[in-house]
Amino acid sequence: MRIREATASDFDLIWPLFKEIARAGETYAFEPDITKEAAEQVWLTIPRKTFIAEKDGQCLGTYYLKTNQAGPGKHVCNCGYMVSAHARGKGLATAMCEHSQQTAKALGYKAMQFNYVASTNDGAVRLWEKLGYDIVGRLPKAFNHPHKGFVDALVMYKWL
Amino acid sequence: MRIREATASDFDLIWPLFKEIARAGETYAFEPDITKEAAEQVWLTIPRKTFIAEKDGQCLGTYYLKTNQAGPGKHVCNCGYMVSAHARGKGLATAMCEHSQQTAKALGYKAMQFNYVASTNDGAVRLWEKLGYDIVGRLPKAFNHPHKGFVDALVMYKWL
Repeated sequence: MRIREATASDFDLIWPLFKEIARAGETYAFEPDITKEAAEQVWLTIPRKTFIAEKDGQCLGTYYLKTNQAGPGKHVCNCGYMVSAHARGKGLATAMCEHSQQTAKALGYKAMQFNYVASTNDGAVRLWEKLGYDIVGRLPKAFNHPHKGFVDALVMYKWL
Repeated sequence: MRIREATASDFDLIWPLFKEIARAGETYAFEPDITKEAAEQVWLTIPRKTFIAEKDGQCLGTYYLKTNQAGPGKHVCNCGYMVSAHARGKGLATAMCEHSQQTAKALGYKAMQFNYVASTNDGAVRLWEKLGYDIVGRLPKAFNHPHKGFVDALVMYKWL
């Protein structure tokens, strides 16, 4: 498995994973019925960089990195990560998050912020905390979970 | 003075105010040297609605309203407000904020979130608190203030 920068031609590999996670609607602020074209825009075109974790031509995971706020906020980046169902529990989220922190520092960012972590996503919250991210905000009922209704979303942050 | 919805042709009126506030770099996450075209994109084209507070053909203030996060977050909107220097201290920010809450509710939003309020912007923080917004997050050193250096940014939130 290697983590490498993704190009536009990689989105065919990424799309099944993206679609599965968007359709579930439990973790990301995407429309559940987002089209492939719109997904490519938000995951690959708009971000500053996108990476793919690939093994034997399969996409096991992916992440993007972008500037979170322009101007006075441009020293803080934002990332999002996806791990395919059959690659979970093997440390890939940790590997991608550590990779993204190195990438961010190499690009000159001083901090990383996650804007919208579903508070119900226990595994992610625990992992980010273990990797040094603090919960710096709690948005009351800001996440409309498909099974649990309106739940809080968290803002998490790490000075790199 | 009346607050009315802005159209593309209004950006000539809005631009001097936008430019002054962006150039100062003390309150908004815009590049200080943002072009008029880019400013029109972020303030008028991308948002769901933009309003102008106009008197005798002059722009005294303006605000935008947009969905803050797609999908599971689409019940929460985000707004930004600008008041021209010679119209300050007359309740215009309050009037626009109350107008924006009415607009948001009419559009079906359940909450409003400010993602990035400079903690040094005391007047704004006090006003939003008075109008019922809570500080729900504090982003350490996320705002690079032109005179004060890295200061915290606040996340503020109101269930409508």
